[in-house]
Amino acid sequence: MIITLTSDFGKQSQGVGMMEAAIAEIAPSARVIHYAHGIEPFAITSAARVLETVQFVAPAIHVCVCDPGVGTSRRPIALATRRGDILVGPDNGVVLPAARVLGGIVEIREISNRSLLRPSVSTVFHGRDVFCPAAAHLAIGVSFESLGSLVAKNSLIGAPYGEAEARDGRWAARVIHIDRFGNAHLNIASRPWRASGGADHMNVAVLVRGEHQVIVKRRVAFGEVKESLPVLLDENDGRVALAINQGSFAAIHGLRLNDEIVVDCSGRRADD
Amino acid sequence: MIITLTSDFGKQSQGVGMMEAAIAEIAPSARVIHYAHGIEPFAITSAARVLETVQFVAPAIHVCVCDPGVGTSRRPIALATRRGDILVGPDNGVVLPAARVLGGIVEIREISNRSLLRPSVSTVFHGRDVFCPAAAHLAIGVSFESLGSLVAKNSLIGAPYGEAEARDGRWAARVIHIDRFGNAHLNIASRPWRASGGADHMNVAVLVRGEHQVIVKRRVAFGEVKESLPVLLDENDGRVALAINQGSFAAIHGLRLNDEIVVDCSGRRADD
Amino acid sequence: MIITLTSDFGKQSQGVGMMEAAIAEIAPSARVIHYAHGIEPFAITSAARVLETVQFVAPAIHVCVCDPGVGTSRRPIALATRRGDILVGPDNGVVLPAARVLGGIVEIREISNRSLLRPSVSTVFHGRDVFCPAAAHLAIGVSFESLGSLVAKNSLIGAPYGEAEARDGRWAARVIHIDRFGNAHLNIASRPWRASGGADHMNVAVLVRGEHQVIVKRRVAFGEVKESLPVLLDENDGRVALAINQGSFAAIHGLRLNDEIVVDCSGRRADD
Repeated sequence: MIITLTSDFGKQSQGVGMMEAAIAEIAPSARVIHYAHGIEPFAITSAARVLETVQFVAPAIHVCVCDPGVGTSRRPIALATRRGDILVGPDNGVVLPAARVLGGIVEIREISNRSLLRPSVSTVFHGRDVFCPAAAHLAIGVSFESLGSLVAKNSLIGAPYGEAEARDGRWAARVIHIDRFGNAHLNIASRPWRASGGADHMNVAVLVRGEHQVIVKRRVAFGEVKESLPVLLDENDGRVALAINQGSFAAIHGLRLNDEIVVDCSGRRADD
Repeated sequence: MIITLTSDFGKQSQGVGMMEAAIAEIAPSARVIHYAHGIEPFAITSAARVLETVQFVAPAIHVCVCDPGVGTSRRPIALATRRGDILVGPDNGVVLPAARVLGGIVEIREISNRSLLRPSVSTVFHGRDVFCPAAAHLAIGVSFESLGSLVAKNSLIGAPYGEAEARDGRWAARVIHIDRFGNAHLNIASRPWRASGGADHMNVAVLVRGEHQVIVKRRVAFGEVKESLPVLLDENDGRVALAINQGSFAAIHGLRLNDEIVVDCSGRRADD
Repeated sequence: MIITLTSDFGKQSQGVGMMEAAIAEIAPSARVIHYAHGIEPFAITSAARVLETVQFVAPAIHVCVCDPGVGTSRRPIALATRRGDILVGPDNGVVLPAARVLGGIVEIREISNRSLLRPSVSTVFHGRDVFCPAAAHLAIGVSFESLGSLVAKNSLIGAPYGEAEARDGRWAARVIHIDRFGNAHLNIASRPWRASGGADHMNVAVLVRGEHQVIVKRRVAFGEVKESLPVLLDENDGRVALAINQGSFAAIHGLRLNDEIVVDCSGRRADD
């Protein structure tokens, strides 16, 4: 059984090491994959986007710890999804976009069964004391039901972002993740984007924060445009992303998480 | 058998990869947990503090490589602790605070048995050539005694920090680690801190480097104070830490490793 | 079987996690060692240098993903080396220096057998969709031949750097990697360097970018020189490197990848 870990802890910090050790103690034969760490601290939006990408790997138990409310009354939860994955994390919306792309939610449990947690639960580190022990117990065959009481879907804290929709060829979108290369991922999913038409290599107008406009080529591989030219990729793990070949779109345009981006595919550009 | 690795090497740098490979060659079935890497280069204080936190995971063999004296005559050592952990690293004090919290030292050996090391030992990388091979041999059942000759406790280089003590409610402490969130860990252990009294949510005065004073709330979860407010947490893996909810205490107060911090719990604050 | 992964992806980013998951799906019992990640984006020179260091660990399958041409017609390739390692990556030169130090190339295959790749191959992430699945299939016993058609050695894109040679005691070299400590690795291999003579602790003149000269001591362990003094180490994993004891040579001298460095061992220095 595979357990993936995603967090806003420092990469290879002891928080990460302690989570793996907590799993190894309960489920020595479970394989821990450090899926992504070092997410911007407290950036639930970014963590949620990263977690979505588990749709491109085999079904597993996925633990996500981006948890500014740790120690308060926010609930620890586990969600069983239609594809067969189980998502484990805080009830702050961070796992909901992943649940959506994994086919939707089948059942939600609050993690409240103390016998499945570490004997002493700290107020600052539920990754080690609650989420990972719960995931490890699932990995060794403890039933989903035994985690704790059922949770109603409509009682959950909402997702940090919704899906952008097109209106007359204009998408009012947001930056939901900036990766190491400075690519800005948008809340536009690849499927509706492609379905909305528009040819490859077409130019589209991108309005950044309502402030300035950039003309970018759409749907090309990095290698197909010259260095330093902007592209609008729709193959970036299920979402449309603004990128620059061998450069950083985010740095050049001063982008930050949650910035508003309007992508206008409504007309042929003068410079097509 | 679990071997944890802690170092000041770059996170996921080849130094880290080579250490795991060196273990895998000798002890293929040992599980390597990358406990913490990327510690500030040569910061023995910080590495020692991080290593202390293995008290919160199950007993294991712990290798710690923060080793500015590599290639000189400083000894490579292994310490058996009362809890059952074995600590492996250079004789520069870095493993001593961990030994203390793991119940104290039972036996110390110099790692001098060449047949347990890599055939060719470089002068720059004892993590790969000495410490990890020694740990791997222990993991496959080689006896602790066979590592090399006994070392007297009083011949060891001292720990990089001692324990702060309270006098009339005032703690003269030091910053011994700054984590990714900017929390500043102090050489005040949670147990004596709690034993010294003082109610939760009490305000205490913190004097930073003798320069300026900050009033902080003590012993609350992050989520219990408003964003941007400072707290004095005593649940941070065995030590008291200065933190800011969703902010960086270290950045705002310009803190550095080893800075002096006086925590004054002697009186009720005017603003209690 | 061990598969090592080296990439310019963010450390512990989901790209790294997805690569391990892609391997685990095909070859659950293969051990994945995250050899090095977070290499400077698109820096083929640096990635190639890092990959060379696998000569110091046991033979394995090594995947290297530094791939600015992904999505173009550049070929995905696998090289069998004389030592027994298999190198997997893009045909952009990045694996060639490693092949050289592993005894040279025995056979090269293009990775073109679609049945060994992921069902859907994206244009942006061949690490997950092509290189790792190919490596995983090799790990479970699929034959090297079945990867795809033979590739002629002389059809490969060249290595990002050659080997510096000495002329009258002067080496015209280049910076091929800068590590976390600010050590600047040169394209001078340790063996010819030592063979060229010159005593340990001798001073040599180093000309940086033709601009300024630094006098450094050669072939000493860090610990043997005083803090902040420069050294020319020849024990840095097979190559000569410019370093400063507990400091950063690269930062102090403003070094960048590919900078020209002349190392002059032709005469005794005045200050010897």
